[in-house]
Amino acid sequence: MLQLHIGNKNYSSWSMRPWVLLRQSGIAFEEVMHRFDSFAPGSGFKHSLEAISPTGKVPVLVDDGLAIWDTLAIAEYLAEQYPQHALWPQDRAARAQARSVCAEMHSGFTALRSACPMNIEASLPDTGALHWRDNAALRADVARLEQMWTALLQQHGGPLLFGAFSIADAFFAPVCMRLHSYQLPVSPKAAAYVERVRALPSVQQWMDEALAEQDFLDFEEPYRLQR
Amino acid sequence: MLQLHIGNKNYSSWSMRPWVLLRQSGIAFEEVMHRFDSFAPGSGFKHSLEAISPTGKVPVLVDDGLAIWDTLAIAEYLAEQYPQHALWPQDRAARAQARSVCAEMHSGFTALRSACPMNIEASLPDTGALHWRDNAALRADVARLEQMWTALLQQHGGPLLFGAFSIADAFFAPVCMRLHSYQLPVSPKAAAYVERVRALPSVQQWMDEALAEQDFLDFEEPYRLQR
Repeated sequence: MLQLHIGNKNYSSWSMRPWVLLRQSGIAFEEVMHRFDSFAPGSGFKHSLEAISPTGKVPVLVDDGLAIWDTLAIAEYLAEQYPQHALWPQDRAARAQARSVCAEMHSGFTALRSACPMNIEASLPDTGALHWRDNAALRADVARLEQMWTALLQQHGGPLLFGAFSIADAFFAPVCMRLHSYQLPVSPKAAAYVERVRALPSVQQWMDEALAEQDFLDFEEPYRLQR
Repeated sequence: MLQLHIGNKNYSSWSMRPWVLLRQSGIAFEEVMHRFDSFAPGSGFKHSLEAISPTGKVPVLVDDGLAIWDTLAIAEYLAEQYPQHALWPQDRAARAQARSVCAEMHSGFTALRSACPMNIEASLPDTGALHWRDNAALRADVARLEQMWTALLQQHGGPLLFGAFSIADAFFAPVCMRLHSYQLPVSPKAAAYVERVRALPSVQQWMDEALAEQDFLDFEEPYRLQR
């Protein structure tokens, strides 16, 4: 059976993507949690990944001894191995567009990712408002999301970015978590998309399990002293 | 015909990847150069990309009106459209591995990318030596490259990462440029791979055209005052 190695559900935005993709698509897998303790060499986290991941990072998908690391490679692997689940849109042009926005997410949106790290259990509207006021790069990232989502929802008719659920929604799910936790101001259309993603059964389950962790890691908590 | 929109060949590492991929594979395309003048909104560069790229960045591949942006999405699109060129390795496990290292490159190696921006015409061994002495994250990035390349060359038998030329070599070509310009110390095996990449006809042509540009852009030149 497929094994997906992940980090803390409350914090690990990269882990969330393939987990939501697998769960929402109904592809069976075994989850292996590697709790974040530190990312320093020799930490428990790094030690537990040693034999599994050549990069020492999560997520890693293991299929019968074959390790696939990095979310985009995992997504492409799954799309190829499970064509019956149509993880990418079936139309050629839509698929190219979906790959473009996922790759854009994969290497971009650095201001949003750095100012507003994923923290599902936290409610940080004041932090969000300060960043919104002071951080032009963050505002530009959110403006690009607005533009992208609005155009895709209109072009493909919703309810998700390419109509039915696809890899693209899994890729933007952590962004939906951030927009919610930091209460960043978005248009009604973008806010409605965020709510639709948050209502997906797989996302609900991930969030429930994140809330149940009740773990607090200083190095993932630039804005809180305690839970 | 395919149109590939790129930036300055001397500086644009992201542009180099799909260009080398197309040229080395013998897929016909038209090149459209957008000279970097500034990345500020309203710059000539941003203006010239307005109607082409939703992100305002290069590279963008345009196929009969369909825009595909971001190197990884372009690579996957080409692999799908031109199966006869076997741009990814044909073996399922090798392909998963190739996608993993490309995705790792796409979102990682930030210390190397930030300390040693691509500048093909420059020779900066002293800058490289200072970074090598002082920048542990850069040394860790290069150590990871060493480990990755050595393992792949051994596993697949060389001369390139997965035997014959693949998307993976196109993705690491700009890294080979950096290792050379900054003369970062690597093992003989890694250095030999760098030389094999530099000797590919497509890479030779890109380098020749980069040298012919004779353009000097302050914001791409943290280490030089003039050519």
